[in-house]
Amino acid sequence: MENFVYDRSTKVIFGKDTELEVGKEVKRFTDKVLLHYGGGSIKKFGLYDKVLKSLEDAGVEVVELGGVVPNPKLDLARKGIELAKKENVGLVLAVGGGSAIDSAKSIAVGALYDGDVWDFADNKLVPQKALPVGVVLTIPAAGSETSQYAVLTNEDGPYPLKRDVVVDNNQVIRPEFAILNPELTFTLPPFQTACGISDILAHVMERYFTSVKNVELTDRLCEATMKTVMHNGLIALDKPEDYAARAEIMWAGSLAHNDLMGTGRAGDFMSHMIEHELSAIYDIAHGAGLSIVFPAWMKFVYKYNVERFAQFATRVLNVDTNFESLEQTVLEGIAKMESFYKAIGLPVRLSEVDIPDDRFEDMAKKTVKLGSIKKLTDQDIVEIYKLAK
Amino acid sequence: MENFVYDRSTKVIFGKDTELEVGKEVKRFTDKVLLHYGGGSIKKFGLYDKVLKSLEDAGVEVVELGGVVPNPKLDLARKGIELAKKENVGLVLAVGGGSAIDSAKSIAVGALYDGDVWDFADNKLVPQKALPVGVVLTIPAAGSETSQYAVLTNEDGPYPLKRDVVVDNNQVIRPEFAILNPELTFTLPPFQTACGISDILAHVMERYFTSVKNVELTDRLCEATMKTVMHNGLIALDKPEDYAARAEIMWAGSLAHNDLMGTGRAGDFMSHMIEHELSAIYDIAHGAGLSIVFPAWMKFVYKYNVERFAQFATRVLNVDTNFESLEQTVLEGIAKMESFYKAIGLPVRLSEVDIPDDRFEDMAKKTVKLGSIKKLTDQDIVEIYKLAK
Repeated sequence: MENFVYDRSTKVIFGKDTELEVGKEVKRFTDKVLLHYGGGSIKKFGLYDKVLKSLEDAGVEVVELGGVVPNPKLDLARKGIELAKKENVGLVLAVGGGSAIDSAKSIAVGALYDGDVWDFADNKLVPQKALPVGVVLTIPAAGSETSQYAVLTNEDGPYPLKRDVVVDNNQVIRPEFAILNPELTFTLPPFQTACGISDILAHVMERYFTSVKNVELTDRLCEATMKTVMHNGLIALDKPEDYAARAEIMWAGSLAHNDLMGTGRAGDFMSHMIEHELSAIYDIAHGAGLSIVFPAWMKFVYKYNVERFAQFATRVLNVDTNFESLEQTVLEGIAKMESFYKAIGLPVRLSEVDIPDDRFEDMAKKTVKLGSIKKLTDQDIVEIYKLAK
Repeated sequence: MENFVYDRSTKVIFGKDTELEVGKEVKRFTDKVLLHYGGGSIKKFGLYDKVLKSLEDAGVEVVELGGVVPNPKLDLARKGIELAKKENVGLVLAVGGGSAIDSAKSIAVGALYDGDVWDFADNKLVPQKALPVGVVLTIPAAGSETSQYAVLTNEDGPYPLKRDVVVDNNQVIRPEFAILNPELTFTLPPFQTACGISDILAHVMERYFTSVKNVELTDRLCEATMKTVMHNGLIALDKPEDYAARAEIMWAGSLAHNDLMGTGRAGDFMSHMIEHELSAIYDIAHGAGLSIVFPAWMKFVYKYNVERFAQFATRVLNVDTNFESLEQTVLEGIAKMESFYKAIGLPVRLSEVDIPDDRFEDMAKKTVKLGSIKKLTDQDIVEIYKLAK
């Protein structure tokens, strides 16, 4: 186990009707808030009105900026920053999923910075301060509601770039509070539910696939979370209004990415990096990109740590360990993982989502290179894309 | 799953040599600290000198009060409160195990209160403020380093009373930081190591044994933690300087009682309450009291939720489920649990520690009554004591 600092400060308010407490929570910080959200769904299902009323009842003045899209854009964040500065708001409140939250975090950082927020992309500059951020979560997926990460897409150049604006070990951006009511997720379309499940699983898998030894507790916590998400994912897709299943997924989504599962170990995170290039160019849903990339990545890298992938197959996917061939055990596990993705309605090949094979080299070159199981080269990444064709 | 608020704010600094950072951490809060500890062990193994030097290097003035004993006493806390007030310290730093930490927390509450700290015992008064508390942990067991609990024993009356001074859902007392270096636990005597393992397991079991339904994620997190602690407990007793095993136990000890495992569910906690009466009178080690009480409690209450105890036996203790008799599965699980306690050198009967049977009614009457599996009556508790004879 490696040394670590664990300092997770987001207050989570979880359960039925908890969105009614948003005014009280915001009021702890400010009298004027920037309400940040995406499209019409929060208005359609009444959440927008409830949030506004709660803020009003608490005596909080509201400035708002909607229009966040999936794979949120730098341009909108810049608009939000301008607005936050002009109106002198004291907190940025995201109502929505990971895109709204990541955009809100970027606004929170930019609002207290004189230059352009993109200066922070990929660690070039590390933010020292930010406005507080609050969240009312509607999509369990990104885990951004309790994490210190934020990803933005920059469309300024000839080639869209999707990058981390706020990086690891920087607490300035971790939301102060996150309100999680599983009922708000009843109306999620099946595809979005599935993408969320895929994203949550990926956050755990990125940490699970490590070369660090002696990490039994976090291994088992990861396995516990993955099994729970897979089990309840199938239930939630079958019965969208099953509160219990939605609650398990929602809480798992926050724990999956607040770094509890990553304590004392280095994660791999290359599947995320590879997927970022895909969704930056082709604008596919992150969760659907992950269900394509992860199996291909596993097929390419498992040889570098067969034991770990065999443990995954056995403990998470209930594959009978073949002690005479751990490799066989691993391959059976990867096949089961693909079956699971298919069962929740996600693609496992690029061809299924009409992504052509003509930019693999290009994307590989642009990919941020991390990796604990294997540090990937450009050529490795091209091979992974080919396995995903 | 029940609604919950999860707001855990202790900063954990985990790993080798982390005790050298104590000065820096304290300095974030104050220039003058009350250093609170137990007997000679921290001096014997050099920790005391390291802590003093780190505080000195950071420019922190030190007032000290040693002498904390297991099942820490109200009298010493009162002395600490007087000292803290007189010297106007800005933080109470506990160096030691749960007893030093609980005593430090009580001092922290009492230092900002005009009356007697015992006024807070059992919720009679709820503390609204406290000095910040910091911890350098030497015994993984109580979980007090990241919890909002503190237990003190009052010997004023004819009958010692062991009571919670600081109660649930009160964040004023949760330590601001906790420094956890597994190497500091290498020198723990086997009995103390075993008592710690027993206490950690008990904290998870208290939460695991619930009547709340639909708690799959936290069930699995509990199971992950219990399996890890049992596995590494045996290793640590066999090889006291096995860093990996000591690290797993130490991190598990903090997670076991910071209420992550309790989110969305009501724990039982009756075994703890019953044990408190035992250790208050007979001053036995808390962990050894728990290894006696828990099996007896299980034998008495399992009938009220056979399925849950069968799940425990199957998932945690690897008992083959007997689908024709869940009860048989449960009993096999309880027997295995007793075997585990014996394997780590702890007693499982009162007779082994020479506790007589003449005060059962007395203790039962005094016991704080909680319970999720079953609300126990005085008579129930007497029956449990009899099963533990």
